Amino acid sequence: MSTVAEKQARNGVNVEALLGAREALTKAPEAARFNWRATCKWVHGTHSRTNVKGYFGLGQEQSHRSEFTFDVDHPELFASEDNGATPVELVLTGLAGCLTAGVAAIAQMRNIQLRAVTATIEGGMDVRGILGADEDVRNGFDGVKVKFHIDADATQEQIEALVAQSQKRSAVFDIFTNPTNVSVSVN
Amino acid sequence: MSTVAEKQARNGVNVEALLGAREALTKAPEAARFNWRATCKWVHGTHSRTNVKGYFGLGQEQSHRSEFTFDVDHPELFASEDNGATPVELVLTGLAGCLTAGVAAIAQMRNIQLRAVTATIEGGMDVRGILGADEDVRNGFDGVKVKFHIDADATQEQIEALVAQSQKRSAVFDIFTNPTNVSVSVN
Repeated sequence: MSTVAEKQARNGVNVEALLGAREALTKAPEAARFNWRATCKWVHGTHSRTNVKGYFGLGQEQSHRSEFTFDVDHPELFASEDNGATPVELVLTGLAGCLTAGVAAIAQMRNIQLRAVTATIEGGMDVRGILGADEDVRNGFDGVKVKFHIDADATQEQIEALVAQSQKRSAVFDIFTNPTNVSVSVN
Repeated sequence: MSTVAEKQARNGVNVEALLGAREALTKAPEAARFNWRATCKWVHGTHSRTNVKGYFGLGQEQSHRSEFTFDVDHPELFASEDNGATPVELVLTGLAGCLTAGVAAIAQMRNIQLRAVTATIEGGMDVRGILGADEDVRNGFDGVKVKFHIDADATQEQIEALVAQSQKRSAVFDIFTNPTNVSVSVN
């Protein structure tokens, strides 16, 4: 019976480190200030290229192991060259990645072994907004649906609780569902 | 003097097509319904991989010319493997790409020749939110700053007006600054 008690989920998330960070940052809240960055250069038409490398956190400059580069464009349907995903698809990708990482971390914390996690996400939009055809139509999504399929050593109730807790702690879910102040300046 | 009047900006945006689409969709608003999608698979730990290919618009299934794949992860600082940009950096990339495409399209519409456009973007965050260390700290950004540097055949006032109009018609700027309903379901 002790073998059951000792069985440890292996989802690849270092929970001890996260709990340690939470304790350390509770005692030293100034170190919890992060700044995430991206630098975007216009290429041609609606095509741009964005680099992500450095960020600020734990009181000092930090860096990813390597630089990440993203081409962003509009599709041929809008008379563009489709050299990359659209801006809104990038944002959906961020939401999917955020909620999925959360599910894995919380499953580890609750000692639930995951076997497979898939999230399909879709955002509906009336493009008359961005085209300026109707001032009453919003530019962004009129709604977003995320459908998880999770195969795990857990009951349906436990799986639903994982997804609920992931939403509760998700940075990108917060960005979608609550307003954020964005200031834009030039030259 | 006629040479000045005939000088045409070449930013690579097909304004005639966009104006045509606006007119067509005003007459046939049901074709303006789009659905943007992403499919995310958990890889290991906080690492996931998202594919973007198909979308719905103009009354039928559409497809990008090729599939776009994004690895998303948390950095080593959070005891993860840093196999991709963080979810929030993807979201910042979407905002930068959206505003930059808007600047290019509006410049074309106003016959302003762009020479170079760069946007540096940063989002501040107190990570005690996502770590669950303090319920009063929000999970998302506590503010986002976008700084454009635009070199163009235009006055500072005209350049500022480009950026202002780009915000006004930006899907991702709207997603950041206004709440969006997100429904999440599982299995």
